[in-house]
Amino acid sequence: MPTRQLVTLGEAMLRLSVRPGDRLEEALAFDVHVAGSEANVAYAAARVGLSAAWVSALPENALGRRVARTLAAGGVDTSLVRWEKAGRLGLYFVEMGAAPRPIDVLYDRAHSTMALAAAGAFDWAGLADTQFFHVSGITLALSDSSREVARRAMEEAKGSGASVTMDMNYRQRLWGREAAAEAVRDVAPLVDVLVATAEDARDLFGADGVEQLQAALGVETVVLTLGAAGAIASRGGTTVRRGGHAVETIDRVGAGDAFVAGLIWGLVDGSLELGLERGLAMSALKMTLHGDLFRLDAGDVAALLAKDHREVER
Amino acid sequence: MPTRQLVTLGEAMLRLSVRPGDRLEEALAFDVHVAGSEANVAYAAARVGLSAAWVSALPENALGRRVARTLAAGGVDTSLVRWEKAGRLGLYFVEMGAAPRPIDVLYDRAHSTMALAAAGAFDWAGLADTQFFHVSGITLALSDSSREVARRAMEEAKGSGASVTMDMNYRQRLWGREAAAEAVRDVAPLVDVLVATAEDARDLFGADGVEQLQAALGVETVVLTLGAAGAIASRGGTTVRRGGHAVETIDRVGAGDAFVAGLIWGLVDGSLELGLERGLAMSALKMTLHGDLFRLDAGDVAALLAKDHREVER
Amino acid sequence: MPTRQLVTLGEAMLRLSVRPGDRLEEALAFDVHVAGSEANVAYAAARVGLSAAWVSALPENALGRRVARTLAAGGVDTSLVRWEKAGRLGLYFVEMGAAPRPIDVLYDRAHSTMALAAAGAFDWAGLADTQFFHVSGITLALSDSSREVARRAMEEAKGSGASVTMDMNYRQRLWGREAAAEAVRDVAPLVDVLVATAEDARDLFGADGVEQLQAALGVETVVLTLGAAGAIASRGGTTVRRGGHAVETIDRVGAGDAFVAGLIWGLVDGSLELGLERGLAMSALKMTLHGDLFRLDAGDVAALLAKDHREVER
Amino acid sequence: MPTRQLVTLGEAMLRLSVRPGDRLEEALAFDVHVAGSEANVAYAAARVGLSAAWVSALPENALGRRVARTLAAGGVDTSLVRWEKAGRLGLYFVEMGAAPRPIDVLYDRAHSTMALAAAGAFDWAGLADTQFFHVSGITLALSDSSREVARRAMEEAKGSGASVTMDMNYRQRLWGREAAAEAVRDVAPLVDVLVATAEDARDLFGADGVEQLQAALGVETVVLTLGAAGAIASRGGTTVRRGGHAVETIDRVGAGDAFVAGLIWGLVDGSLELGLERGLAMSALKMTLHGDLFRLDAGDVAALLAKDHREVER
Amino acid sequence: MPTRQLVTLGEAMLRLSVRPGDRLEEALAFDVHVAGSEANVAYAAARVGLSAAWVSALPENALGRRVARTLAAGGVDTSLVRWEKAGRLGLYFVEMGAAPRPIDVLYDRAHSTMALAAAGAFDWAGLADTQFFHVSGITLALSDSSREVARRAMEEAKGSGASVTMDMNYRQRLWGREAAAEAVRDVAPLVDVLVATAEDARDLFGADGVEQLQAALGVETVVLTLGAAGAIASRGGTTVRRGGHAVETIDRVGAGDAFVAGLIWGLVDGSLELGLERGLAMSALKMTLHGDLFRLDAGDVAALLAKDHREVER
Amino acid sequence: MPTRQLVTLGEAMLRLSVRPGDRLEEALAFDVHVAGSEANVAYAAARVGLSAAWVSALPENALGRRVARTLAAGGVDTSLVRWEKAGRLGLYFVEMGAAPRPIDVLYDRAHSTMALAAAGAFDWAGLADTQFFHVSGITLALSDSSREVARRAMEEAKGSGASVTMDMNYRQRLWGREAAAEAVRDVAPLVDVLVATAEDARDLFGADGVEQLQAALGVETVVLTLGAAGAIASRGGTTVRRGGHAVETIDRVGAGDAFVAGLIWGLVDGSLELGLERGLAMSALKMTLHGDLFRLDAGDVAALLAKDHREVER
Repeated sequence: MPTRQLVTLGEAMLRLSVRPGDRLEEALAFDVHVAGSEANVAYAAARVGLSAAWVSALPENALGRRVARTLAAGGVDTSLVRWEKAGRLGLYFVEMGAAPRPIDVLYDRAHSTMALAAAGAFDWAGLADTQFFHVSGITLALSDSSREVARRAMEEAKGSGASVTMDMNYRQRLWGREAAAEAVRDVAPLVDVLVATAEDARDLFGADGVEQLQAALGVETVVLTLGAAGAIASRGGTTVRRGGHAVETIDRVGAGDAFVAGLIWGLVDGSLELGLERGLAMSALKMTLHGDLFRLDAGDVAALLAKDHREVER
Repeated sequence: MPTRQLVTLGEAMLRLSVRPGDRLEEALAFDVHVAGSEANVAYAAARVGLSAAWVSALPENALGRRVARTLAAGGVDTSLVRWEKAGRLGLYFVEMGAAPRPIDVLYDRAHSTMALAAAGAFDWAGLADTQFFHVSGITLALSDSSREVARRAMEEAKGSGASVTMDMNYRQRLWGREAAAEAVRDVAPLVDVLVATAEDARDLFGADGVEQLQAALGVETVVLTLGAAGAIASRGGTTVRRGGHAVETIDRVGAGDAFVAGLIWGLVDGSLELGLERGLAMSALKMTLHGDLFRLDAGDVAALLAKDHREVER
Repeated sequence: MPTRQLVTLGEAMLRLSVRPGDRLEEALAFDVHVAGSEANVAYAAARVGLSAAWVSALPENALGRRVARTLAAGGVDTSLVRWEKAGRLGLYFVEMGAAPRPIDVLYDRAHSTMALAAAGAFDWAGLADTQFFHVSGITLALSDSSREVARRAMEEAKGSGASVTMDMNYRQRLWGREAAAEAVRDVAPLVDVLVATAEDARDLFGADGVEQLQAALGVETVVLTLGAAGAIASRGGTTVRRGGHAVETIDRVGAGDAFVAGLIWGLVDGSLELGLERGLAMSALKMTLHGDLFRLDAGDVAALLAKDHREVER
Repeated sequence: MPTRQLVTLGEAMLRLSVRPGDRLEEALAFDVHVAGSEANVAYAAARVGLSAAWVSALPENALGRRVARTLAAGGVDTSLVRWEKAGRLGLYFVEMGAAPRPIDVLYDRAHSTMALAAAGAFDWAGLADTQFFHVSGITLALSDSSREVARRAMEEAKGSGASVTMDMNYRQRLWGREAAAEAVRDVAPLVDVLVATAEDARDLFGADGVEQLQAALGVETVVLTLGAAGAIASRGGTTVRRGGHAVETIDRVGAGDAFVAGLIWGLVDGSLELGLERGLAMSALKMTLHGDLFRLDAGDVAALLAKDHREVER
Repeated sequence: MPTRQLVTLGEAMLRLSVRPGDRLEEALAFDVHVAGSEANVAYAAARVGLSAAWVSALPENALGRRVARTLAAGGVDTSLVRWEKAGRLGLYFVEMGAAPRPIDVLYDRAHSTMALAAAGAFDWAGLADTQFFHVSGITLALSDSSREVARRAMEEAKGSGASVTMDMNYRQRLWGREAAAEAVRDVAPLVDVLVATAEDARDLFGADGVEQLQAALGVETVVLTLGAAGAIASRGGTTVRRGGHAVETIDRVGAGDAFVAGLIWGLVDGSLELGLERGLAMSALKMTLHGDLFRLDAGDVAALLAKDHREVER
Repeated sequence: MPTRQLVTLGEAMLRLSVRPGDRLEEALAFDVHVAGSEANVAYAAARVGLSAAWVSALPENALGRRVARTLAAGGVDTSLVRWEKAGRLGLYFVEMGAAPRPIDVLYDRAHSTMALAAAGAFDWAGLADTQFFHVSGITLALSDSSREVARRAMEEAKGSGASVTMDMNYRQRLWGREAAAEAVRDVAPLVDVLVATAEDARDLFGADGVEQLQAALGVETVVLTLGAAGAIASRGGTTVRRGGHAVETIDRVGAGDAFVAGLIWGLVDGSLELGLERGLAMSALKMTLHGDLFRLDAGDVAALLAKDHREVER
C-alpha cells in the first residue's frame, strides 16, 4: 500500500483580487490568497483527510514561503517542493464580477520558478509511493519545460503503479484551443481519470457528452462537470450522474479543484459514485468561501451529504 | 395602568462573528455585536416605542458595560440589571454561512454571571409594574438556577397582573429535546402567549400545527412562525394567519426576536392580527441588518406595512 | 462638426454611504463617492470614449477639488467648471437597503455653490461647440437660479445647433410633483430627447406609456425606462423597445445616468436602437459597481452586447 | 442644591476625518465621530460622573438622531435639545496631519439648525437648576442669533445662581481676531471662569500670561492651557500651576474640551487645583483616543492621577 | 542527544484586542491573535529554527483547532496536545493603550480546558526526550490542577536530563503576590534557569538585583529583564549584561516570551551571552509586530545582531 | 522657452505593501500604490505646478492603465508613454518595518515592459521641448536596453538644450556597487545636476562629501541628501546647505523623489537654495503620507516654508 494517497504537481501563485463592486484599476487594497489548480487539489484533499503531497518549484522569498506555509498549514506535505533562486512567484489578478459582468482574470505568471523548472531538476523517487497522481492542463500550458515536467511525472507515477488523474482545465489566456487539444491528446494514454467541463469538452474536442470525450481520448474514466447541473461520469460502459447543490455563491474560483479533490477522495474509497457526490459537495462548499482554497473539513462535507442540517446550527 | 409595557428577562452575550466567506478558524478580526434573545426583544420593543426594561445579571467589566450601554442607547431601561463580580459575560461565535453551508454557532456561555445568578438575588418588585413579561426557552436551558429565576419571574409577573409571553426558542447545543419539552410543559400554565417555530413545535411536541401545540400545552394564545411563509396564531378557537415578506437576507440571526417584539407591540395595542403583521415586518427588516439587534424605528415598520415605498427613497 | 460630443450641466456632490446591513446612525465610517446626475452622465460618456465636458460651479476646497479630479481622471473635460469661494459642496447620505427595506437618501445639498450660481456667471460660449447638451430635472429643482442656469444653457446649446437631451429625474425630496411637472413643461420646447422612468411619467404627467408622454410634452424623441424590463423609445411615430439584463445588483444608484450616457452614445452614432442597447447594457453594468460612477470602458459594454463571454474570463 | 451639576450649550456636528497618511481628497472612506466643543464637555463630564445636560438644536433626521443617541449613550441628558425641521447638521472634515504637516480642518457648518436657532426658541427654564453653565467662544462665532442665544443663556444661568464657565476657543476659520476679542469682552462680565490657550490669550488680547488676561477681562478665575507644559490658573490673587503628562498622541482634537470637563469636575468638588489636575489628566487621556469624545471613565482618570500603574495591566 | 531542543507547557488563548485609540467597550471588531506565554515561547523558538514542541490541552472546536493550526504553521510540534470535550478555550481581551494610558487586559480564561486538565491525563513520556523544558509562572497560577501539572512536568523533564527554564511572569489579575512568591519558591529547586522582570523580582521577593534573586531562590542561573535597558544574568558568580535596542513599538505584548525563546536559543548553543543578545534582539523585533507571536525568522535576528542594515532594504 | 518644464523617464510599478506590524508572508490584503522613482518625480512636480511629462512603456492591461490614470490624475502628461503588448507591469512588495526592523523590499520587476523596451521604440522628438530632463540610476540598472534608453534620452534632451538631472538612487537588490559606479561614471558627462545620498556617495565612489563626489564625477552641480540632517549642494565652487524638518514618519518611501522634484522646482525658478528648501520641505511632507507619491500641492509646501502654522488649522 503506498504511503501517500495523493501527489499533485503544478504551479502555485498568489491571487490578488478585489471584491465584487470594486475594480483592479482603482482598489486601494488587494485581497491575497494562495492558489494554483493542483495546489488547490492537494490542499482540499489534505483538509478532508487524505495524505497528500504537492510537487512544485518555489522561489526562495517571502512569497514562496507564504505559499508553502499556507499549504502546509492545511496538512499538505510540501517536502517535495524545490526551492530555487531563479524565477519568481506567479501572480494572478482577479476582479470578481457580478452578472452580467464576468469575473476578469489577469495572469502575471510568466517567468515563474515553476515555469522555468526542468524535468531533470526534480527527484522523481518522491512520486514512487502514491496511490493517485494528479496534474491539470494548466501545467501543460505554462511552458515547454513545464509540459515536459508534467509528462515525466505522469510517466513516473504510472510506472510506480499510481492512478493518474488529470483535469483538462483549459485556459484561453494561456494558449489556444488547438494547442491545448493536441497536448491533452498527447498525454491521454497516461491518464486513468480525466475531468473536464462540458464546455471544454465541446470546445476542444467537439465532444457533446462524456462518452464522446471518452471515445475521442480513449481514457478509462471520464468525468464531465455540468455547472449547477452536477456531473456525469463514464467508466467501463457505465454512466453515473449526480445533481449539483443550490449555492449562494461567494467566490466560484477554485470550485473545480475542490470537485477534483472530492472525486479522488471517492476513488480512494473505491467508489466513483461517492467521488461524484463528494466532488459536487466540495465544489458547492468551496463557492461559499473567499479564495481558491477549500478551507473546510471532512465533517462539513459529511454534513452536507447527510442533508440533515438546519439553516442555523446552534 | 402599569408604568412599563414590557419587561424581558434573560442573558445577554457578545456575539463574535465572521462575514460570509470567512472562517472562525482563520479570520483576523471578529465583528462584535451585543445579543441575547430576551435582550433583543427588549431592544426591538424600545426602538419601536414601547417602554421596555431588561432584567439580567452582568459582570462588572468592560464587556458587561458594553452590553448595558448598547441596550440603553436603544432606549432599554437597564436599571433592573444586577452587576456582579462573579461570573463572566457569555460569548457566542458565529460563522455566517451561505447555502448550502449552514450558519455555524459555537457557544461559550457557560459560567456566565446570568447562568450563576440565583432567584433570590433579584429584586422582584421591579416586575410588579409591567403590562407584558417575556422570557425565552433559552433562559430555562442555561442552568438550574437560571431556570428557577425564569420560573420565579413568570410567577411574580403573572401575580402582578402582567401577561406572560414566552418564545420556545429550542437550542440543540444547550440541551436535548426531551429536557426542553419537559421544561416548557412545566412553565406552560404560567404562559399567556407562546411563540414557537413550526419546526420546534413538531420536534419537541410532535405538534403539526398551531392548534395541536395549543392543545398539547394548554396555552391561551399560541403563535407559530413559518419562516418565509409568515406566521399563524390561534386564540379562543380562532386562527389568524399572515404571510411573510420577500427578503434579501444580510443576517438572519435575531429575526425571531424581532418578530416577538412586533407581536407584543400589536398585543399592547390590543390586536393579535397587528401583532403578526408587525412581527413579520420587524422580522423581515431585522434580516436586512448586521447583528442580532433590530436597529430600526417604528417609522421603518410603518413604511413597510404601508407598502408605499420606492426602491430608493430620495 | 462640433469639437465636443457632449456637454452636461449640473451639480456634483460627495455621496457618503453605508453598505447594506449598516446604518447611517451608527456606522463608524462612510464610503465616499463622487456623484451627481449630469456629472455621472459626463463621466460614463467619457469612459466609453465620447469627448465630454461638464459645466458646473465648485467650491475652492478639498472637496471641490476631489470632485474635479475624479471626473477628470475619467476623461471628463472640467475646464468649464467655475471655481467659487461662495457656497459649499453638496452632500448626500445613502443607506443602502436590502429588500424589503428601501435605499434611504438624505440630501444635504442646500446652499451649494452650484445652487447659488447665477446664469450670468457662466461663460456660455463654452457650449457653442457640442453635438449634444444634457441636463436633468434635478438641476431645475435645486434653486430658482439653478433653474434659470439650466434654461439658459439649453437655449444656448440649442441655439448653437446642439441636440438637447434631458432626464426628467424626479426627486420627491427636492420638490413636489406639480412643481416638477410645470418646470418640465416649461423647458420641453427646448428638449430634443427626453428620458424618464415609466413611474415618473405616470406620477407627473399621468402618462401610461411613451406615446402619451410624447403627446403631453411634444418632444421629438421620448425614452421611458422600465426597470428590469428594459426601455422603450418613441420617435417619429415609431416605437423601439429593448429588454434589460439580469443583474446581480451591487449598487443601483447611478444606473439611470449610465443609461443616459449609453443612449447618447448611440445617438452620436446615429442610432436610437443602439442607444437603447448601449444604455441598457451600461445601466446593468453600473449596477455591478459600488458608487454612482460608471467605472468601466467601451470594451466592457461591447463584451456584454456581444453576449460572448464565460462567467470567468481567464 | 441644583439638580444638575453642569449644563453646556453649543452646536454639535459630525466630524468626518481621515487617518494620518491619508487625504480628504482621495480617501475612500471617512471615519465618523460626533463632535462639538460644548457637547464634548458635557459628554466628558457625564462620563466621569457629573450630572450633565446639553442644550442645542438638532435637525430631525438620521444625523441629528446620531448626535443625540451618541451623547445620551455617554450619560448626557439631552432632554433640553430642540428638534427642528429647519437647518442641517453641521459637519467638519478633518485631515489628521503628522509633523511637519498640520492637522487640516474644513468646516461645513453654515446653515446648521443650531446656527439658525433664535434665543426665543429655547425654554430657558431648563437652565434654572444647574451648578455650572458652560459655553465656548465658538457659539459666539457661529451666527448673530447663536451669539444672542449664548448671551441669553449665560444671563439666565447666572441669574439662577449658576457659575458660568467659558472656553475662549478661538477659531480662525470662523471669524477674525478682532471680532472674537470684542465678543469675548462683551460677555466677560457674565463669566466666572474663563479658559483659554496661552496662544489665544496672546493673539486676541496681547496677554502674556494668566494675570494679564485676567486684568484685561476682569474675570474672577482665569485658566490658561500651555500645551504639553500643563496649565496655570489665577484666582483671587493666587496662581496655581500644574504640569502636563507625556502623551503618545493618537488624536489631539477635543483635548481642550476634556480639559474643561476635568476643570469643572474639580470646581464642583470645590478645588481649582483638583480642577487643573483632572483637566490635564483628562486632556492627556483624550489624546490617546480616536475622535473628539472622552470615551473613558472616572476610574481611568483616578488611575492616572494615582500614577500607580504598569504599562500593561494584566 | 535529545530529539527535541525545547518543550514548553502552558495554556494558549485567543487574544481579542483593539488597536490604540479604540475601546473594548465600543469597537465594532476585535483583532484575533493566538497567544499564551509558553505557546509564544515555543512558536518563537520554532521560527528561529529550534525543534520545539508545546504541551497543552485544547477543546475540540474551531477555536482549539485555530490555536493548534497557527502554532503548527510556525513549525511547532503539536503532537503532544491533548484534545478534550471538556472546558473552553481561554480568551483575553486587550485594549492597546498609549501613554499615559496603560494597556488594559481583561482575562476570560477561567474554566479553560487546560486549567481543568489533571496531571494524570498527560503522557509524560513525551517529555523524556528534550534538551530544555520551559514553563511560566502563569501555569502555576491558573488552577490547582494546572500547578500540579506544571510541577509534574518539571519533575519529569528534569528526571529525563532536561534543563528546566522558568519565566516568573507574575500576573496580578490571576493571583496575589504572596501566593505567587510561595509557588515560585516551591518549584525553585526544579529550575535551572529563572527569568523575571526586575519589577517582579522586587515585588515578589524584595530582590533589588539578579544576585539577590539568585540568593533568595537558589537557582543556578537567573536572568532579569530591565525593559529598554536590556537584561542581566547571573550564573556561577559571574554577571553578564547586555543593553536593549531602541524600538518603535507596535505591540509590546509577547516581547518577554520572545526574549525567553532567544535566551534558550543561546543556551542551546552553549552561550548565556548569546542568549541575552538573541533574547533582546527577539524581544525588540517582536515589539514591531502585531500580536503576541514572534512571526519572524532566524535571518531577521541575525540581521539585527549584525547591525549592518539600512533603514530600507531594497 | 520650452513648452514643458520637466520630462522624466523611467519605470513605474505597482507597490504592494503591508502596514507596520504586518507581514508579507501573512497579511490578508496588500495596500496598492503606484510608484517608480522617475514617475514619482514627475507626479510631485506636476502637483506643485510644473508642467511635467513622464516617458515610459506600459503594458496594455488594467495595471498599466492604473499607472497611467493615477499619474494623469495628478497632472502628469502621459502622452509620451508607449503602450505595449509585450512584458508586464513591474511590481514591488514592501513590508513597512519599525525600528529596529528595517523596511523590507522585494522586487518583482524583471521582464517588465519598460525593461524590455528598446531605445529605437521611443519617439525622441517628444523630448525636444523641455527645460529639465530627469532620470535615476534605477533606469540604468533595469536592463541593458533600459540603460541604453536612458543614455539615449539624456543625449537627446541635452542636445535639445535641456538640463539633465540625475538621482544616483543605488539599489543593492538590482546590481552591485561596482557596476552601478561604472554606469554612473559613464553617463556623468551628460549630467548637469546629480543628486545622491551621502551613503551612496561613500559606498559607490568613496566620496566623503559633496565636493569629493563632484571631483570624482565632474558634474557641474552635485547635491547630497543627509537624511534628517538636510541636504548640501555644491556648484561653481560654492556650497549651500539647508537643514531638514522634524518628521513624524508615516511612510518614508518616495521621500527622495519628492526631494528631487522640489530641487528641480527651485532650479526652474533659478535658485539652488530654493531648490534645497523646497526639496527638503517636500521630502518631509511626503513622509507624512502613505505611498510613494507626493499627494500634496504647492500651497502645502509654501505653508511649511512659511513656518507660520498651528498644529491644527481650524
